[in-house]
Order: sequence, then structure tokens, then C-alpha cells
Amino acid sequence: MKVIRTIAELRQELSLKRQSIQSRESVVGLVPTMGFLHDGHASLMQAAKQQSDIVVLSIFVNPIQFGPNEDFDSYPRDEARDVETARAKGVDIVFIPSVEEMYPQPTQTTVSVSRLTDRLCGASRPGHFDGVTTVVSKLFNIVQPQRAFFGMKDAQQVAVIQQMVNDLNMAVEIVPCPIVRESDGLALSSRNVYLSTEQRQEALVLSKALREAQEAVDAGTALTAADIRGILRQNIERSRMAVIDYAEIQAFPSLEPLADQEKVHGRDDLLIALAVKFGKTRLIDNIRLQKSEVLSHV
Amino acid sequence: MKVIRTIAELRQELSLKRQSIQSRESVVGLVPTMGFLHDGHASLMQAAKQQSDIVVLSIFVNPIQFGPNEDFDSYPRDEARDVETARAKGVDIVFIPSVEEMYPQPTQTTVSVSRLTDRLCGASRPGHFDGVTTVVSKLFNIVQPQRAFFGMKDAQQVAVIQQMVNDLNMAVEIVPCPIVRESDGLALSSRNVYLSTEQRQEALVLSKALREAQEAVDAGTALTAADIRGILRQNIERSRMAVIDYAEIQAFPSLEPLADQEKVHGRDDLLIALAVKFGKTRLIDNIRLQKSEVLSHV
Repeated sequence: MKVIRTIAELRQELSLKRQSIQSRESVVGLVPTMGFLHDGHASLMQAAKQQSDIVVLSIFVNPIQFGPNEDFDSYPRDEARDVETARAKGVDIVFIPSVEEMYPQPTQTTVSVSRLTDRLCGASRPGHFDGVTTVVSKLFNIVQPQRAFFGMKDAQQVAVIQQMVNDLNMAVEIVPCPIVRESDGLALSSRNVYLSTEQRQEALVLSKALREAQEAVDAGTALTAADIRGILRQNIERSRMAVIDYAEIQAFPSLEPLADQEKVHGRDDLLIALAVKFGKTRLIDNIRLQKSEVLSHV
Repeated sequence: MKVIRTIAELRQELSLKRQSIQSRESVVGLVPTMGFLHDGHASLMQAAKQQSDIVVLSIFVNPIQFGPNEDFDSYPRDEARDVETARAKGVDIVFIPSVEEMYPQPTQTTVSVSRLTDRLCGASRPGHFDGVTTVVSKLFNIVQPQRAFFGMKDAQQVAVIQQMVNDLNMAVEIVPCPIVRESDGLALSSRNVYLSTEQRQEALVLSKALREAQEAVDAGTALTAADIRGILRQNIERSRMAVIDYAEIQAFPSLEPLADQEKVHGRDDLLIALAVKFGKTRLIDNIRLQKSEVLSHV
């Protein structure tokens, strides 16, 4: 495994690796991350390993996707451990550029997706998704992967990036990978390290709220979007520390919100998504609603 | 030569052609145009032919780079003649997508370059350059060229696209090609067909103004930006029909305007650019200022 820090060296190495593979159809798989890798990232690397000839893991805490009052400076970093994790997962190249390498001058060019980005995390974090789509465009142009692997914890990010890929005819397949959770249900996130012991315990209300919503959908056919929103808020508000940013139900990947009176039953295109703050730490979680086995046969 | 109208077929054909070339380093050259080809385009195809293994000419009148009151509907088109021109110039693939093929849904994704686009044509045509950079991004992603050829008549477009390529790390070399002129000096443009006989005659003030400015620079060392602007306006105003949109001197490719009192002498990074309307027809022209041979030895 090679650790590479410059764009020029990465391009050279990829060119050599592509040539060394017999088939002209060699598949490069990219796993773009901000590092501080956890088992969620590991599952992305594993999927990439299965579906690619050459796996590139990028680690870059991208300043332009952080707001001025967000946690760019304090975002957790552990390069040495990340490199070992990547090695253990069979990654071929770890790309760790500096901010100066990625932005030798402040970028004058922005890739932005409208509509999908004006809600949920986009509403709470103005400019965030422009930063994401711009840096992902850069990474795609640098690595030129055939496949790129993203975690569904950032479901809105997946929808936004897929829209960008479609609109701009990018020659890359976006592979969304399932959320990975702790045994007690908490969705893995690099930001979980910010949580105090008490906050960590209370943070379980997110996954519990999602589970209860799914169970309610499984149990009854008359459920409306308003009912779901009620279940989510009730569950989250059991934690006194929790401050809800949003608790929403919408179509996926269009992210069109459901009107309160809309029925949920029988639809398999719905996403329930949460963002909740514990102190300064903002956690997100979501679930794709499954049609109940029984009800789907009605 | 193949004429191809869908993205899928183009990708397939390019993949076959790339494989048929012995060297793995096959160079695809793209000449993006809006069609109604003239000798300016021919010079781009010629440059592409010399510098590429596979030449792709795209013909697409891109609706999103036209303003609501601009000439999208009336923009001149002659596909049959264009295809013959391309064939004569040794183009390998002519890509002529429909609007529906390029925009099956209205694009939610925009690639935009700031600063460089707020002046000159960008000031007169709000949104124009966003349309250009977005469609050029799409074409780059579809064709994946190693080189792309653009005419310097649209000098600002060249600067904007080069900035986009730099900022987004696009793996393509932008090759700017010199302006091609009629024997009397008029810069070739598909829009020249809009001109009446009288307008066509008066339109010569553009190239004359540029020539006089160059001559003035060659003749004297004390010339300021204000002097240049004066020369340009005096020359253009000799035509009663001419309505000046801009007549400017700036650095290239930064497009930073020169202050009036700034000296022009001894700089080789300057661009003089004009946009002038004759009736409804807006013509542009420009010249890169050359250091005078004599003065450059002083």
C-alpha cells in the first residue's frame, strides 16, 4: 500500500497501476473520507475491495464544507491509525493531500446542486453541500474512479452527489453503503468522540426513534407523515439534552418532504432523517422505510 | 467519420477507438462548438488533428448559456454543411446531441466560476458563463478528452475554462487557438451572418481599433490604459451604428482591469477586448498586446 500526498504522484501511480492490470477494463474504486476511520468507513473499503481492481482511500478534511462556526479545526484526526486501518483492509493507495495541495489558491470554481440542498442539513449548514460537491468533483477528476463508495448515514449527501453525477454526466457509479451501528444502535460517526458519557447514552434516542417509526409503519396502514413526525419527536424528546435540528420524512432520493396528511403505507421510497444536537455535537441518523413483509402482500 | 447523437453511443465508440489504438496513451482531442462552422472552427479542428489521435467535434447550441432575450432560437444552424466540413477536416466523431439528450431534466447542478465572470461579457450576459462552464464540464465528462481546443476570440471564455480546469483538477489540457479573420480584418463568428451589408462594413471598426491600439503601444512608451481606452472608443465611434458594450484593457488571464493611469509599456500579459452592438447583433473581438520588438530590447 502506498501513502501519497500529491496529486501529481497519485496520477502517476494510478497510471502505472492501471497499466499493470491485464484487462483494459480495470476498475478504480474511490472511498472519499475525512479520516478518523471507524467501522462504517471499513465497510466502504470492504465494498470497494470487492467491486474494484484498485482501491483508493482519500483522507481530506475539506475546509470549504465547514461553516465559519463549525468544527473544522477540532475535527478529529489520527493519520497513523487511519493508515494502518487502510492497510488492514487491503487498500492500494491512501491519498492524504494537504489543504495547500487541494487549494493552492482559494477556489474560484464551485459545483453546486440546487433544490436537494436547500433542506435538512443544507438548511442548517448553508454552503456545506457546495463544499462537498466541489471537493468530490475534484477528487473524481484526480482519481478518475469507475466507482465511488459513500455511506448512507449521509443520505442527503448520497442524493446530492448522485444528482451531480447525473446532471454533469460524470463517468462514475455511486455505490451507497448501509449505515454501520454500534451494538446498542448508535450510528457510527467520527464525531461520536465529541460526546460525553452521558450524551453518548442519550444519543441512543436517535436510533430508537427510527426503530419505533419503522415499527409503527409495520403495524398499521393508516399512518400519516404527521404521525411519523410525532413519533420521532416524542422519542427524541425523552432525552432532556437533545435539541432537534430536524426530524423529517421525505421521498428518497428526491428529498421532497411529505405533507402532514400523506399516508406512509405501501411506499418504499421514503427516508426518515434526523439531526439532533447534544451540546455542541450535532448527530445525524436515518432509515429507509421498508414496506412491511405482511403489508406488502395486501 | 461517425455522426453520433447519444451519450451512450459516443462512450461506446470512444471506448472502441481507444482500444484500437496501439499505444495506451491515446490522446482524444475535443473541439466543442455550437456549429455553423467557419474557418475559425476549421483551425481548431486542424490543431486538434495535429495534437490528437482521435478528434471529437461536438455541435451543441447550449440553451443554458443564452439569456432569455438572447438569440438561442435564431442562432444559425446548418448541420449538413457542418458534417461535411468536419469530414473534410479529418474529424473522427461528430457528436450532435439533442437538448433532451444533454438535459433530460433541467439541470440542478451548476458549475460556476466567480470573479473572472463578473466583468466584460459576464457583466452584459448574466448567467452566460455558468451555462458555458456547466456544459463544458458535461462534455469533458462525456468525452474525457486529454486536450480541448478553444478559439481565442472568446478570450474570456478561455480564461474562465482554464480557471475551472485548474480549480477542479480536470485532467484535460486547454489549447487556446488564435483568432481567424476575414481578409479585411473582421474576426470570424457564426453571428456575422446576422449583419446587413452596411453593418458588415462598419463592423470593421473593431479590428481597426485593436490594430491602432497595438500600433500606439508599439510607437510610444508613455501610453496609459486611459490612452488605450480613448483610442478604442475614438475608432469605434467612427461608426454611427456601433454601440459600445465594452472597450477594455486588462491583464490576461486574470482579467484584472488596468487603472486609467497604469502604463502599458513593457507588459506582455495584456488583453484588449471589445464588445460592440450593431443593431441586435453583438460582436466581440480582442488582441493580446505584443511587446514591440524594438522596445522589448530597451
